[in-house]
This record gives sequence, structure tokens and C-alpha cells, in this order.
Amino acid sequence: MTTANLISEIKKKQSFLCVGLDVDLDKIPEFLLKEEDPIFSFNKAIIDATHQYTVAYKPNTAFYEAYGLKGWKALEKTINYLNENHPEIFTIADAKRGDIGNTSSRYAKAFYEDLGFDSITVAPYMGKDSVEPFLAFENKHTILLALTSNEGAFDFQTKKIGEEELYKQVLKTSKDWNNSENLMYVVGATKAEYFAEIRKIVPDSFLLVPGVGAQGGSLKEVCKYGLSSNIGLLVNSSRGIIYASKNNDFAEAAAREAKNMQLEMKAILNGIH
Amino acid sequence: MTTANLISEIKKKQSFLCVGLDVDLDKIPEFLLKEEDPIFSFNKAIIDATHQYTVAYKPNTAFYEAYGLKGWKALEKTINYLNENHPEIFTIADAKRGDIGNTSSRYAKAFYEDLGFDSITVAPYMGKDSVEPFLAFENKHTILLALTSNEGAFDFQTKKIGEEELYKQVLKTSKDWNNSENLMYVVGATKAEYFAEIRKIVPDSFLLVPGVGAQGGSLKEVCKYGLSSNIGLLVNSSRGIIYASKNNDFAEAAAREAKNMQLEMKAILNGIH
Repeated sequence: MTTANLISEIKKKQSFLCVGLDVDLDKIPEFLLKEEDPIFSFNKAIIDATHQYTVAYKPNTAFYEAYGLKGWKALEKTINYLNENHPEIFTIADAKRGDIGNTSSRYAKAFYEDLGFDSITVAPYMGKDSVEPFLAFENKHTILLALTSNEGAFDFQTKKIGEEELYKQVLKTSKDWNNSENLMYVVGATKAEYFAEIRKIVPDSFLLVPGVGAQGGSLKEVCKYGLSSNIGLLVNSSRGIIYASKNNDFAEAAAREAKNMQLEMKAILNGIH
Repeated sequence: MTTANLISEIKKKQSFLCVGLDVDLDKIPEFLLKEEDPIFSFNKAIIDATHQYTVAYKPNTAFYEAYGLKGWKALEKTINYLNENHPEIFTIADAKRGDIGNTSSRYAKAFYEDLGFDSITVAPYMGKDSVEPFLAFENKHTILLALTSNEGAFDFQTKKIGEEELYKQVLKTSKDWNNSENLMYVVGATKAEYFAEIRKIVPDSFLLVPGVGAQGGSLKEVCKYGLSSNIGLLVNSSRGIIYASKNNDFAEAAAREAKNMQLEMKAILNGIH
């Protein structure tokens, strides 16, 4: 998917909501456990109920790997279902991969070509030659960890290298890499006060923003400093939407929560733009 | 596996060789492609031929994910084969994972408990709460990326935070984390001149050392500065061993290469200790 397609979908739906498909069999409604593939059944119901409010879905691969082969099969079925039924929706493999060059190429091929994701999250620690193999794919997007939503972000990411924090070095340095137009960045909603500084470095890049809701980030604060001229935000919610109810009405509850976020986003977009 | 078990195995075999099981179907002997599971068949033959010279095996997960479900099945079969036939050999999932706390727990459970690996490589960028979930498992080992073997290591890892390079901060900071006795570190063989400095910070920790052979690192240089009082090194070779021949004699060729490295290691151990 091109960035233009993503922006167009955001404008059409008046939403920049990403739903995190982090399926935990201990948290889904019990009656689904009788299904042949409870993970996929849950995802399908969530997608069917929320797609009109949503421009992106983001399965975190950890939740699938945790179930071994069964989990990988459910991940495959989920991405296939999305690509067949909602090709206009942006898909993110939240995998936080990264390795030396020829190995990163393997990951890129697996997630972009074989599974068919539009994007993957990648860790920057190993530098340019670990990330460029991901950037080499046309109309695919590499979402580099910059400033994450967790407490551990303060261990290294905000430490100063010379005058500037490591996460800023990551933003600046990565702009010079080959095919950097395919870069997006992860910036946690719990760090809203940093968005203004980040926008000085990457004014137009899309930012994937986890941490709204359960982790305590504020949508309004994120938007105040993070919105760009082309919107430039994908705000993720996982638990707040997919686990809104553990009962038979889980899909309706998810739809209601997604709709609430979409309405809030619409109001913000119309207030600002 | 306990660290004491690993050290005992190293002393017994007079080897600190780790063989990287990075299977690429384009590089294995053609006749294996007719087997039902060529990846596992290849691994099994390599393991059968090299285990007497080897104290660790390290499949890089990228090479398995690249083949989707088929790849994951081969990974499962490989680790099961190792645990059943060679429980004394240390196993490393070279996965370079890392995520926010509850998600890292998922990865840890998947690799340590479900698959049954002794250890996993983890990226440090997200800090303490992304790594501690891995450290919480008894007799399991978390191998944190410190200074990697690739060129991109110079993008961020060797940049100075105050007086000290980022990779040194990673070493020092991580020593204070809960259960840090379960930490090992990745240090590339291509950076042999850094080992002396690293040993000042982590004198006793095991270091997993990729980059000898195809990537140009020297075993002698690594040992000169990297050996600790309890040996403390696992030196990995992947391509140099597993692709020593592409013909019917691939397993014998791998055994020969592994044996050569073991003999070199034995000579070094006996020269120094």
C-alpha cells in the first residue's frame, strides 16, 4: 500500500485508528474456545465489527508465537482475511525484528511477501545495514522503534549522545538511509510532550502511536503535538477495544469502543484541519 | 541448563564452539530437497555429524520464519531432536526479540517453555522492563545484544553517552536488572579490540561471539581478550561449517570444519589455562 492510499483512507473514514490484535486465549470469551481456531475466530469477529472505524490492524507476533504452529496458522489466516476482504486497510506486523543484513532480508521477505503485511516494526539497535533490507521493498513500510511507550524507554532511548537523545539520533540518522521514504516511526502516547520535538525532525513521517488507553496516554495530547499536514498518525488501541467485553457481546463492545475513538478522532481532525 | 553445566561441557569437550543452524534451502544439497522436511533433515545430519565438537547450537529464527508454517515445524523438530538426543548441549534461539513487559513474557514463554530453548537473544533498545521478563526464568539465559558484528554497530552502539559508548551503558545498566545472573551478551568477533574493555565491565559473563569466519573475525584475537576465568565464550560459526560442502559429503565436511575449530579451541585453552 502507498502512503497516499493510507492518507486517503484516513480522510475517508475520518479515523486514524489502528486496532491491535493481541489475542490472549485467557481473555477471549469462553464460548470461542470451542471453535476450531479460536484465535482466528476472535480476530474475524473483531475485524468484522470494527473495520468501518479503523484504518489499520496490528497483530503483535508475540501473541501468535506463544501458541506455536497453531498461532502462526491463525496469524496467516488473519492477514489473509484482511487482505482479501479489506485490502484498503493498512496492516502492521508488530514484530520488532532486526538482524544483520542477509538475515533481515529473510524477515522482510517473510512478513512483506509471504505473509503479505504492508509494514513491520523494526528495532534500530543494530543500525543501518539491519534496517535497509526492510526498506528495499516498494510500497512496504518499515516502522522503526524511536521512543517507545514503556518505562524502559528511559534506560537508553532518552540518554543523550552529545547534545541529543538517542531516539533523536535514531530519527535523524535513519533519514539518510536508502529508501528512507518507506520509514515510519513508533512513538509512545505516554510521551506526548516529546511529539513537538519529534515533529521538528520528521515533520511528515507517519508515527505509529501505542499507549493510548490501558497504558495511560492521551489522544488529545498526542494529536496536539503529533498531527502533521497529512495527519501522519496511526494511534493504536489493543486491550481497550478487543477486550471491551468478555461476554457474548464482545464484538459489539469492541465496535462501540472503536466507534468512540473514531468519533473523537473525527472531532479532532475537524477542529484542527 | 545451568551455567555450571555449560562450563562443564566446555571443559569436557575442550570446545566452546556454537554452530549456527541458519538453513537456506538454496544452499543445502539438492538431494535433500526431495525429503519430506528438508530443513530438519539437513539440521539432523549436521547435528549428528558435529555434536561431539560442539557445545551449543543456534538456529536463527529468521531462516525458519522465512518458510512460514513449514519453517516453524522444522524449528520445533530441530529443538526437540536436540533436547531428546543431546540434552547436554546448550541451545540458543537467535531471535533478537524484545517488547513491552507483558509481550516480552509471551516471547519468553514461547521460546523457553514451549519450544524448550535454553536461551534467546534479546535486543536492549526498549530497556529494563522489556528484558526482565526474559530474566525471570530459572536456568534459562537471556543473551542481550551489546556490540554486534555488523557495520551498523557503529551507527548507535559505539556512540558516546557522556563518557561512555552506548554498548557499555547496556552492559553496565543491565547488570543491575533483576536476575541479571541469567544474562549473557552478544559481542561480534569483528570487534576483537573491544573485548578487553568489555571484560572490565562483565569479567565473568558468557559472551556469544558471532562473526568468526565468513564475517572476518579472528578466533585467536577474540580469545586473547575475551576468555574469562571460566572460559566465558561461545564462538559461533554458521556458514563456514554448515555450508562447507554442497555435495553428498556435506555432513562430513561440516564435521571436518567443526573439528578444526574444536582443535584450535583446545590448543588455545591448553595454551592459556
